[in-house]
Amino acid sequence: MTINYPQGTNLTANSITKKGPTIFGDRGMTLEQEINESNAYYRSHKVAVIYKKPTPIQIVKVDYPKRSRAVIKEAYFRQASTTDYNGVYQGHYIDFEAKETRHKRSFPLSNFHEHQIQHLDSCLQQAGICFAIIKFVTLQRYFVLPAQVLIDFWQSAIKGGKKSIPLAFIEKKSLEIKAGYNPILPYLDICRQLINQTGENHG
Amino acid sequence: MTINYPQGTNLTANSITKKGPTIFGDRGMTLEQEINESNAYYRSHKVAVIYKKPTPIQIVKVDYPKRSRAVIKEAYFRQASTTDYNGVYQGHYIDFEAKETRHKRSFPLSNFHEHQIQHLDSCLQQAGICFAIIKFVTLQRYFVLPAQVLIDFWQSAIKGGKKSIPLAFIEKKSLEIKAGYNPILPYLDICRQLINQTGENHG
Repeated sequence: MTINYPQGTNLTANSITKKGPTIFGDRGMTLEQEINESNAYYRSHKVAVIYKKPTPIQIVKVDYPKRSRAVIKEAYFRQASTTDYNGVYQGHYIDFEAKETRHKRSFPLSNFHEHQIQHLDSCLQQAGICFAIIKFVTLQRYFVLPAQVLIDFWQSAIKGGKKSIPLAFIEKKSLEIKAGYNPILPYLDICRQLINQTGENHG
Repeated sequence: MTINYPQGTNLTANSITKKGPTIFGDRGMTLEQEINESNAYYRSHKVAVIYKKPTPIQIVKVDYPKRSRAVIKEAYFRQASTTDYNGVYQGHYIDFEAKETRHKRSFPLSNFHEHQIQHLDSCLQQAGICFAIIKFVTLQRYFVLPAQVLIDFWQSAIKGGKKSIPLAFIEKKSLEIKAGYNPILPYLDICRQLINQTGENHG
């Protein structure tokens, strides 16, 4: 079950003020929380406008009590057609999926869905800046894996190749996110590198 | 209550094949349906990747029946922090809100929420292509109103100015969407004009 936290909620107000040395990643936050908080930082500092999309819900039954707000009484989670995050950063369309794993040596492709890969591919074709943020929870390491690398690996897996991306491959083909306080996960620094590598190809 | 239709659903399969001359706009579709269908067309023809965001829901109670999918038993509609639609079109970030009115001479600003105006402003600052699609239902006319015009009008209303945008003003300051079949609402033609007017200002 996915809860969408209210926008702008500072989830780590306590963890930031706790005593002793704070180790990056030692906050007990999920990757989603870390990204949401980073996005709130980016928005409030006018660096970028990036949001997590709401979880799509199929609504079946709604009650409209008098003098009270509507209550959804029956609904189901739906598969999203897209990635979870998108937005705009200095004229660039940003689109990414975020996944975490407790594996230590590789990242299983089964964490992704076919439609997410297809969506990233479609957005790449429109000159979007597309990637996956991968967190190795036990290693406390975060990588920005360019979408094209992920798509190529996915295609190769379909043809019988490896079903899991080795850490060594990720280390080689991604950009690692360095520790930060403001924001916690300064992934747009990496985006900037991706943009510079890609060059300007806006239509 | 807002229902999110499954992506790619062709809502007008019947109306398109019905007998007699089909008049643009004479399909009994809501503006949301018209835009969703146009977006599906744009995606399938690789013109752009633009989606309506799911309605944000606050989930309170979920049942996990055995051998069956999770059922949401209590949830509430939440106010969205952003506009309803965003995506990427040939390297450009696209962000817009869609509103329809049955008024014939003006468009009441009360159709918009403060946070939508603020979001459009934030996205404009990031060099996004931002606007509102306004449908005058009874007139069967559709306009693309640039976000800056909307924001200026909103600011003026706060200071005691008009609370409703006169049609004549919209005619003067927006670009009207011309009738279409594929897609039904070819609003990206208008986007192209906005982009050309704005010039290239990507960072």
